[in-house]
Amino acid sequence: MSEPARAEIEVEVRYAETDQMGVVHHANYPVWFELARTALCRRSGFDYATIEENGHLLMVTRCAVEYRAGARYGDTVTVNACIRRMQSRTINFEYEVWREEELLATGSTDHVWISRSTSRPCRIPEYLREPFSQLAGC
Amino acid sequence: MSEPARAEIEVEVRYAETDQMGVVHHANYPVWFELARTALCRRSGFDYATIEENGHLLMVTRCAVEYRAGARYGDTVTVNACIRRMQSRTINFEYEVWREEELLATGSTDHVWISRSTSRPCRIPEYLREPFSQLAGC
Amino acid sequence: MSEPARAEIEVEVRYAETDQMGVVHHANYPVWFELARTALCRRSGFDYATIEENGHLLMVTRCAVEYRAGARYGDTVTVNACIRRMQSRTINFEYEVWREEELLATGSTDHVWISRSTSRPCRIPEYLREPFSQLAGC
Amino acid sequence: MSEPARAEIEVEVRYAETDQMGVVHHANYPVWFELARTALCRRSGFDYATIEENGHLLMVTRCAVEYRAGARYGDTVTVNACIRRMQSRTINFEYEVWREEELLATGSTDHVWISRSTSRPCRIPEYLREPFSQLAGC
Repeated sequence: MSEPARAEIEVEVRYAETDQMGVVHHANYPVWFELARTALCRRSGFDYATIEENGHLLMVTRCAVEYRAGARYGDTVTVNACIRRMQSRTINFEYEVWREEELLATGSTDHVWISRSTSRPCRIPEYLREPFSQLAGC
Repeated sequence: MSEPARAEIEVEVRYAETDQMGVVHHANYPVWFELARTALCRRSGFDYATIEENGHLLMVTRCAVEYRAGARYGDTVTVNACIRRMQSRTINFEYEVWREEELLATGSTDHVWISRSTSRPCRIPEYLREPFSQLAGC
Repeated sequence: MSEPARAEIEVEVRYAETDQMGVVHHANYPVWFELARTALCRRSGFDYATIEENGHLLMVTRCAVEYRAGARYGDTVTVNACIRRMQSRTINFEYEVWREEELLATGSTDHVWISRSTSRPCRIPEYLREPFSQLAGC
Repeated sequence: MSEPARAEIEVEVRYAETDQMGVVHHANYPVWFELARTALCRRSGFDYATIEENGHLLMVTRCAVEYRAGARYGDTVTVNACIRRMQSRTINFEYEVWREEELLATGSTDHVWISRSTSRPCRIPEYLREPFSQLAGC
């Protein structure tokens, strides 16, 4: 078992993401996590957009964020994602948001695989088992 | 030909809608317009959600907003919508946003009817012709 | 010690809140929580907008959501909020999102009081101590 | 008088930006415009974040978008911005959104310079007159 793969993206803070406190509103961090998760999935060799077209969804069942310092308009932050746990039907991702050397926020999301045809939980699609296990480092 | 029907809704400004200027970010007004448009459609006797399920979409082809004064967190604004023009394949809506006696913004949107099965423009569905004509006051 | 006060609001799902999965995108729930929290604060006799003007902020330090079923465009959901724990410098709120008899999501947020003049953590402002203690049921 | 400068950015469509129609919700385009406008301002030698800190705002007074085709999750679009007209107190920007060779949307925004200290309209700050005139190609 090796280290999980970690995808890292840069996000330029949008003016629309700030609130009257002068920092990024906290509800935007899950959206940034999703961008990093998309980048991580891409490393499996399959875009998440393609995975959906192929008939499976990774539905979010839990999302948590801890905030340490606020990102500001003018900042470009780095967001990274990795798979922390993976089971046959579920995946747990972890995230970090950095502004240079400062950790602004951490978070995690739980997901369950859903079959689009039945709208019901299912096992990870066979063709993704190996690539996602590699991402997870297991 | 009579006056067009006007639907009016109340919207409580959300903290997340403000930006660091201390007012509602301008990109939120089209979202409020949509709430008022939904309320107006409901007056036809058919929820827009049902219209979509029945197989038709009102796709936005143009959206314009003029801003006079900023809405603020703590405000509850009134948003109204009416149909300004209606043709066999298109509809034009107009909107106003008020804070008590003060007009904060006006706007308009153009839409084209789309058939979900073909994803192509089409005529207004037959069952909506009469109710929407009444809304339009024509 | 009595039961904490629970504020309840109705939220009409916005089309813009849905995503291509056909349900409300998960990042919108913290925004709904905030609306319910605003309603709860109002019960203290002080609007949160006024509390900010008076020089204090309730900064979010943690936010968590558990999702059970997706809200859809066409739904009007009920969101409630209560104070679960309160200390001299921090507050923890809990939330529920219901669609009639169906619990769609639960969540919680942690906050710290911030003085706007210093931008630093502080104790709950004196004038809010008693009203917020009553909300918390302690 | 030469051609106006045109800033171009790439935007990866976010899942949260899609709606149940399967395309990017129309209210997100003004947010993308803002990213391109920020990139254009940067070419003046002054970040818009710095311009605000220095005491001036470019308040939006009008925003219009025309939609030709929908951007989708999985797309990376190109958004460009240029100054179309500039007067002592106002600026008009124009925008285009492209997906490879396909023009998805066009738009424009009007802005007025606001002094933060007075919250009132004012002339373009002296230090920006020359750099912005160059951007405008006049």
